[in-house]
Amino acid sequence: MRTSLCDTLGVEHPIVGFTPSEHVAAAISRAGGFGVLGCVRFNDADELDRVLDWMDRNTDGRPYGVDIVMPSKVPTEGTDVDLAEMIPAEHREFVDRTLERLGVPDLPEEDEQSDSVLGWLHSVARSHVDVALQHPVKLIANALGSPPRDVIERAHDHDILVAALAGKGEHAQRQVDDGVDLVVAQGHEAGGHTGEIATMVLVPEIVDAVGDRVPVLAAGGIGSGRQVAAALALGASGAWMGSYWLSTAEYALTAGDTAMQQALLKAGSGDTVRSRIYTGKPARLLKTRWTEAWSEPGAPEPLPMPLQNVLVSQAHRRIMRSDDPEVVSMPVGQIVGRMNEIRRVDDVMAGLLREVDETFARLDKLR
Amino acid sequence: MRTSLCDTLGVEHPIVGFTPSEHVAAAISRAGGFGVLGCVRFNDADELDRVLDWMDRNTDGRPYGVDIVMPSKVPTEGTDVDLAEMIPAEHREFVDRTLERLGVPDLPEEDEQSDSVLGWLHSVARSHVDVALQHPVKLIANALGSPPRDVIERAHDHDILVAALAGKGEHAQRQVDDGVDLVVAQGHEAGGHTGEIATMVLVPEIVDAVGDRVPVLAAGGIGSGRQVAAALALGASGAWMGSYWLSTAEYALTAGDTAMQQALLKAGSGDTVRSRIYTGKPARLLKTRWTEAWSEPGAPEPLPMPLQNVLVSQAHRRIMRSDDPEVVSMPVGQIVGRMNEIRRVDDVMAGLLREVDETFARLDKLR
Repeated sequence: MRTSLCDTLGVEHPIVGFTPSEHVAAAISRAGGFGVLGCVRFNDADELDRVLDWMDRNTDGRPYGVDIVMPSKVPTEGTDVDLAEMIPAEHREFVDRTLERLGVPDLPEEDEQSDSVLGWLHSVARSHVDVALQHPVKLIANALGSPPRDVIERAHDHDILVAALAGKGEHAQRQVDDGVDLVVAQGHEAGGHTGEIATMVLVPEIVDAVGDRVPVLAAGGIGSGRQVAAALALGASGAWMGSYWLSTAEYALTAGDTAMQQALLKAGSGDTVRSRIYTGKPARLLKTRWTEAWSEPGAPEPLPMPLQNVLVSQAHRRIMRSDDPEVVSMPVGQIVGRMNEIRRVDDVMAGLLREVDETFARLDKLR
Repeated sequence: MRTSLCDTLGVEHPIVGFTPSEHVAAAISRAGGFGVLGCVRFNDADELDRVLDWMDRNTDGRPYGVDIVMPSKVPTEGTDVDLAEMIPAEHREFVDRTLERLGVPDLPEEDEQSDSVLGWLHSVARSHVDVALQHPVKLIANALGSPPRDVIERAHDHDILVAALAGKGEHAQRQVDDGVDLVVAQGHEAGGHTGEIATMVLVPEIVDAVGDRVPVLAAGGIGSGRQVAAALALGASGAWMGSYWLSTAEYALTAGDTAMQQALLKAGSGDTVRSRIYTGKPARLLKTRWTEAWSEPGAPEPLPMPLQNVLVSQAHRRIMRSDDPEVVSMPVGQIVGRMNEIRRVDDVMAGLLREVDETFARLDKLR
């Protein structure tokens, strides 16, 4: 299976894999796809720099990209401490009370003061861009639509492509007008930040809106070769997969988070929920006792981005340490129902390609 | 494009069209697809009988089906009057107040006492089955999953196939165990009653669960040949389309409802909402001032089926009479964004087939 995207990105297969794990991202690129490393976990730009050094040594010269989280409008800024002051006491009390009820232990004292995840902040995302420009990255993707124009221009000056995630046709149009080189049409069923329009409807809509100007990738609900083939049938030039890589052996190398992987392996396609509790913007998460607590009567409304993430950031660390599969806080798409065993990235990729071929052969017989 | 479904249903093209209009249903069958007439609008079994007589004369001997709305468990029953007594005053007052605010006039006195839509009642749905068995229908579909076993058996005694709509893999499994011959995997983006799992994820899940025993149709988000081709790529034996036919010239022959068609032509794919306000079960509707009123602070929670429909039934007649595109109450899927002109059914069908062929040819070049 070759599409124009293969030439655009310089890859063998039009399969882009988004992941917060450098081990997964590098393995995807080595397997002939295009690995995109999520940067939001890096509070410290120097740490990202070291990880990209590692990527440069472990991708066998194959291309890769990075994903930042940058609203095109500059949101509330500040240090962790300033932001913390903006969080209502009611919200803090709800989080504390809920974690206690769910049996999530406190952090050990030495961990309590460590930073929240700050990658959602504009300034931190900009530091990610600064670092990325010093590495041979082929693409910068932005999870929140167009990055600011100067970021797009700087990327282009370095011959780096810019991709943006879009959940509506008009967003895609604006992004391409802004200079974005590649649009990821991300449907409702996707993990993480996601809109209301499902992949089946969104992909042809965005292809019709901007497909004559830029390649369009389909995202949301893709974890098998049939789904990759369906994405191509809808007019996409390739597939953008995020959730599926969370059940790879390589992911465990970065996260070592066995409770989370266990929870994902057990979950069905109906076990997700779209909620503002993770970042303040609607994002699809694994449905657990933690997400359910936020929809009970008396639970507060989630705060806007980036305050909600600051609020739940320590809670997330407590939850991760507690290692309880029933109290996981994890973005994942409806494809989680198909994530039923831990496999290596190269095995996943080979399976996808095989099933795409079988699907094309099956469709050919219907003609 | 030929699949096994063509043999199962005795049709040329694996495209099934669900519609409340006999004019549309007959035109779909005449165009080589399979028209399925929705029966919920028939309070009076004799009227359905007369309409099926008309179908028999106007389908050129091509096969067609009917769609009933029958929960497998028998719900609250009673005449319109008994049910009316179960509706809280708060709900009635909200409906009256809202219609007044939206400028929807009262019904003329002579219309005020006419019946609610009773097709949602088990007993009325059973009368639809009785009538259907007297006609050469090829298929009875149930919008609410498996019909009761005796209904399945009676259909089979008449060599009539039974189809059920499913929104989860486990539902499909139960339906096939119950004797259902054909499963319609209906994704979140579909119009009317719909679950949470999107078509892209749901179709392969249901194909993997029951596809070795019965044909699976894909529903939800289908209104172009690319989407039909994607459905087949996902493993479906054909496409079930509902919403799209609402923008046909033939639909206007039955409904003559120009405000509704105008509203649909203007709407984008983001202009729908999934809500319990139409029937008491979650159904996707066109987003209008009427649906928005139900999500405002102070609006009551919708009642369970069938009470909610009894509650809003007179409101729906008032809304229809008022002919205001901004206050329409209409089930429709996200594909409404692609419904931008009034076309004849045969023209729609020809366009679908042409685009499927183009898509298959395009995919073939990627191999």
